[in-house]
Amino acid sequence: MSDLRVDGFQFSAARAGIRGKDRLDVALIYCEKEAEAAAVFTENRVKAAPVLLGMDRVKNGRLQAVMINSGIANACTGDEGMARAKAAAGMAAEALGISEELVLVSSTGVIGMQLDMSCFEKAVPLLVAAKSSDGAQQLAQAIMTTDTVEKTAVRKIRIGDKNVTVVGIAKGAGMIMPNMATMLCFIMTDVNIQAAVLQGLLEKAVNKSFNRITVDGDTSTNDTVLALASGMAANDRLESPDLPGAALFAECLADLCLDLALQIVADGEGAGKLVTIKVHGARNEKEADSAARTVANSPLVKTAFFGQDANWGRIIAALGRSEADFDPLQVDISFDNVKMVQDGLGQGAGAEKEATAVLRKDAFTILIDLKNGSASGEVYTCDFSIDYVKINADYRS
Amino acid sequence: MSDLRVDGFQFSAARAGIRGKDRLDVALIYCEKEAEAAAVFTENRVKAAPVLLGMDRVKNGRLQAVMINSGIANACTGDEGMARAKAAAGMAAEALGISEELVLVSSTGVIGMQLDMSCFEKAVPLLVAAKSSDGAQQLAQAIMTTDTVEKTAVRKIRIGDKNVTVVGIAKGAGMIMPNMATMLCFIMTDVNIQAAVLQGLLEKAVNKSFNRITVDGDTSTNDTVLALASGMAANDRLESPDLPGAALFAECLADLCLDLALQIVADGEGAGKLVTIKVHGARNEKEADSAARTVANSPLVKTAFFGQDANWGRIIAALGRSEADFDPLQVDISFDNVKMVQDGLGQGAGAEKEATAVLRKDAFTILIDLKNGSASGEVYTCDFSIDYVKINADYRS
Repeated sequence: MSDLRVDGFQFSAARAGIRGKDRLDVALIYCEKEAEAAAVFTENRVKAAPVLLGMDRVKNGRLQAVMINSGIANACTGDEGMARAKAAAGMAAEALGISEELVLVSSTGVIGMQLDMSCFEKAVPLLVAAKSSDGAQQLAQAIMTTDTVEKTAVRKIRIGDKNVTVVGIAKGAGMIMPNMATMLCFIMTDVNIQAAVLQGLLEKAVNKSFNRITVDGDTSTNDTVLALASGMAANDRLESPDLPGAALFAECLADLCLDLALQIVADGEGAGKLVTIKVHGARNEKEADSAARTVANSPLVKTAFFGQDANWGRIIAALGRSEADFDPLQVDISFDNVKMVQDGLGQGAGAEKEATAVLRKDAFTILIDLKNGSASGEVYTCDFSIDYVKINADYRS
Repeated sequence: MSDLRVDGFQFSAARAGIRGKDRLDVALIYCEKEAEAAAVFTENRVKAAPVLLGMDRVKNGRLQAVMINSGIANACTGDEGMARAKAAAGMAAEALGISEELVLVSSTGVIGMQLDMSCFEKAVPLLVAAKSSDGAQQLAQAIMTTDTVEKTAVRKIRIGDKNVTVVGIAKGAGMIMPNMATMLCFIMTDVNIQAAVLQGLLEKAVNKSFNRITVDGDTSTNDTVLALASGMAANDRLESPDLPGAALFAECLADLCLDLALQIVADGEGAGKLVTIKVHGARNEKEADSAARTVANSPLVKTAFFGQDANWGRIIAALGRSEADFDPLQVDISFDNVKMVQDGLGQGAGAEKEATAVLRKDAFTILIDLKNGSASGEVYTCDFSIDYVKINADYRS
């Protein structure tokens, strides 16, 4: 029995030959009954056809199946792309014997190419025949693009006297930027919850997790975080976010999302280090966020992480071009617990030696105190490596 | 006789051993008389000591000498850094026999280290003894950091019946972002002009040149563009920007600045390609600028340029996260004269093959039409290569 089982859900994956490659590249999520559904989509003005279709279909708060493909994003494909997204959903609906309106499709991959519908004609019967409660790990593989590892997480909690399971499966490695990215995440739970409540809790969880990670500052046309709830845990229905059970579930959901978000950063294209940028002492949250994101996205800061160079000057220069107001002669910067900068001044060779040791670790925190207020913010990033350039110079070839 | 001679100015460079290296690392600009002076400095909140000192000294509109060092930026060095900047200026003033207030110092290099004053004690007499009207090329070498070539430009015009020469010397290769960067530029001219007029014309020229280039989105603590005018061309004094001579000079100055700015992008750290991003059809200039800059700074777009991959999907995804309003199904994108995207849709394999040929060139233009208005904007960028990462991971070691 797989760790990723959750009552009411079946999964499968297949080789459809999208873009001509012999790999798992389509997958299916099926719920034995209509699930309560909630979703958060990309904020990019350019939205892929499956995102536009999904935004429409999730409005009803009910979905029963999701078919996902990797390889082609079905973005910038115009009316024809939308027709193909709908046709793919229609094939899955027919094979499953459910209403087309209950099927969402999701795509990730290259922008600007049309999907080859013969791939789906071949794959849909395979997906439907193979679906099983044990198939989640295969689904996690099938949705990968430049990812090097599958990203999954499970949480189990008790609500009242019922056991509730939440399973999350995500993909994403580049084009990751606060406010989502080429990132797909599917969350399946057996909790009994109303779609509107699930939507509110999902948005909060995404804001604290997927919207706080960055690999390269780019955002994508296809980002989707989808949550489906089968209700089969049979807990008292969560009809309001104010119920104690809802608070428990919210915490669990946020924790699961952060887990998956950090898995994505750690697998950032070419990344060797997971770096947390924490800013304290900002005038307000917006400025804290701007300071943290500007540091987290600076190529010079990120290449210094790659080079294991405790080059705090690049951090302070990035802070200086952020939207945060502060006095440069007040700033403190620590690498984990090593104070590198005190009141804007470097703390010398001893501190630098210790900070360099911190930079050799796989994960560390840069703690910045602007001493100009009480707001704080946090962003998760990675180093910027030679392999990032190699991966992205070669991605399509 | 050097091409970089300009009436009234002398230059020299020397080996001061800043950061212990045996290379040309200090330089001097000397004007035989008090020059009219104008300057534009970094907009980064964190400003190096020489920038703070320079902002103060240029207010009078009069300078006679500039001493520049590379290797150490004298940024984030506190009161001690300011004291050392003043002391260095004082040494130069004393050796030249001029008032300290007429000397500006300028630094570029690593942030957070104090200047070793014994380097200046050794170098100042050498600089003063060696100064000559032929020394500009050596100065251009001495101010380089990660630059691979000297950056110089000369323009000659006639104002009335007088010959006017303008010489520009710049450095900068990384940390370049619209709104200046680790970029120094010194402009020497013999034009007879009032400092206030020179200041206005310089600001306009900088906005159209140095503020429109980007290598990596980072900005620096030390950026300085300084213009000095000896007046020795003896043209009728340019006391207003409305004089015909002022318009001629303005055009010449803007052209010289753009020339130097493009030299900087072409020498971007690890860069092999000079790419112009032109946006038309935006609702207003702010949105045109945001669209062009977001594309120009996107690591995914820039790595695709490096990989010679006509991946227009990354361009349209970057546009989608910019501040520009537009309809994705209206956008046109051309690579030079090859239309890759028409009304949001890719133009197929034939166009892609032609566009790939464009990407093999050393310089090309990405032309974007948002079809949502009449405003346009233009930014100059470069590709993002494996060498960029190597250079910046190793810079301090």
